[in-house]
Amino acid sequence: MTISKAVITAAGKDQTHLPLQTVVDRSGRARSALELVLAEVVSAGIEDIAIVVAPGEQDRYLAAAGSFASRLTFFIQHDPQGYGDAILRAQAFVGREMFLHLVGDHLYVSDHSQWSCAAQLVAVAQQEQCSVSAIQPTHESKLRFFGAIGGTPVAHAEKLYEITAIMEKPTPTQAEQSLIVAGQRSGYYLCFFGMHVLTPTIMDLLAEAKSTVAKTRTDASASLNLSDSLRKLIQREKYLAFQIQGQRFNIGETYGLLIAQMALALSGPDRDRILVELIELLARPK
Amino acid sequence: MTISKAVITAAGKDQTHLPLQTVVDRSGRARSALELVLAEVVSAGIEDIAIVVAPGEQDRYLAAAGSFASRLTFFIQHDPQGYGDAILRAQAFVGREMFLHLVGDHLYVSDHSQWSCAAQLVAVAQQEQCSVSAIQPTHESKLRFFGAIGGTPVAHAEKLYEITAIMEKPTPTQAEQSLIVAGQRSGYYLCFFGMHVLTPTIMDLLAEAKSTVAKTRTDASASLNLSDSLRKLIQREKYLAFQIQGQRFNIGETYGLLIAQMALALSGPDRDRILVELIELLARPK
Repeated sequence: MTISKAVITAAGKDQTHLPLQTVVDRSGRARSALELVLAEVVSAGIEDIAIVVAPGEQDRYLAAAGSFASRLTFFIQHDPQGYGDAILRAQAFVGREMFLHLVGDHLYVSDHSQWSCAAQLVAVAQQEQCSVSAIQPTHESKLRFFGAIGGTPVAHAEKLYEITAIMEKPTPTQAEQSLIVAGQRSGYYLCFFGMHVLTPTIMDLLAEAKSTVAKTRTDASASLNLSDSLRKLIQREKYLAFQIQGQRFNIGETYGLLIAQMALALSGPDRDRILVELIELLARPK
Repeated sequence: MTISKAVITAAGKDQTHLPLQTVVDRSGRARSALELVLAEVVSAGIEDIAIVVAPGEQDRYLAAAGSFASRLTFFIQHDPQGYGDAILRAQAFVGREMFLHLVGDHLYVSDHSQWSCAAQLVAVAQQEQCSVSAIQPTHESKLRFFGAIGGTPVAHAEKLYEITAIMEKPTPTQAEQSLIVAGQRSGYYLCFFGMHVLTPTIMDLLAEAKSTVAKTRTDASASLNLSDSLRKLIQREKYLAFQIQGQRFNIGETYGLLIAQMALALSGPDRDRILVELIELLARPK
């Protein structure tokens, strides 16, 4: 099965403005963060892109999408019903196909000489024909920001793991008890990268979870997360994790946008020029 | 005379979108470049601010002005008639008062422990009660980007010069012949900072120049610059230059926005944290 669809979620309350930020890309041009995320998706061979946004955001997103606008289909998430619910909005769009999923508030910088982060992930998923979550070894001091996995290395495959456990924002103690993966540096765990290829089974699992929540909870704030359904996916299907050659930056963190931009510029053709300017800044007498 | 008005020009064809860019400020928050420029102006005690914009930009500028919106008066420059003409649009707004003038596509980072760049300049202009242009010693390799002055140091005043010559984007040879200033490092010249305090005389001179241009030129592209009128100001009035303790960044240059943001962040309270993140980026194995 070829992967030709992507779902980007950007409806979270604190997240909705982030893809509209201006970012200096690796060639020094100012573009919207959304354009960079869309370029990342398109570089992986994706043709149709669903974006889940908060009500009233569609026009601003279309304007910020630049030349990618014609590939977009919008879905609206009215209430903050959680990350899992946002993905579920695109269920009809996805149909029975595998799809790439990215969060809208991250920027990705590939360390691969030719392939973007999304292209690396999609290639593995196409070959393995199963769900694959992108991961990055992450120091235990940053576990509180991410979902993390436990798993076993796949034989004869580099940086590929069979997922056996998933924990959302574990403590270092929890991680040490449940998420040790052979071959990792001490104190490092495999954390989600904000990028997954998923089979449509995840939509089934999210729909089941949503109906369970609706039956058992009466409060409107019931929020559907993704991790619970990913954990069920482990039981149902082959589900792998792949260590991307690259970095992800959460642009919603303080200085996240700035550091992401600096990483982009330093990964581009003008690295030396940027370094000279940086050193001039740092050498300035106070 | 107290200085309570400012004129910001942002109508240039390649310039009009720049103040609307997102910038990460020194505390890590994403704000519009316009907001930072307005904060700079307000920090100098300015109450009323005129912005000269291209047609159709007013609403976007108002939205980007944040809490400063109520202080703004807009003037429209319909055709690209030059920088001098843009300032002249605010003639009635300025009246017979001295005013602060900034270009809309620069960001300013003060090296002074307490005073912003604009506050430093306005303080000198209030004390001297004359036009004062902010300047920065600039290497001859960058002369092609700036206006530069020649002048003589004012006795018993630090970093203050009486202006004797003004050249727009001189060659190094021209600068060496006409713009040597006592006490400067070899190869460095005093270049404009994109920030001036001007007496209303400059409006008279610009109006005269405009009427001369209108009489002698019949083509629509006749463009009114500021330097010619500043040069006439030397003959009419006391006109000083003051070396600001700070840096200016042209955010229209390639990587200009990125370097400006980095300078802002490095000048803020989280300098050490930014440095750690930078070193992590640079130390990343390729």
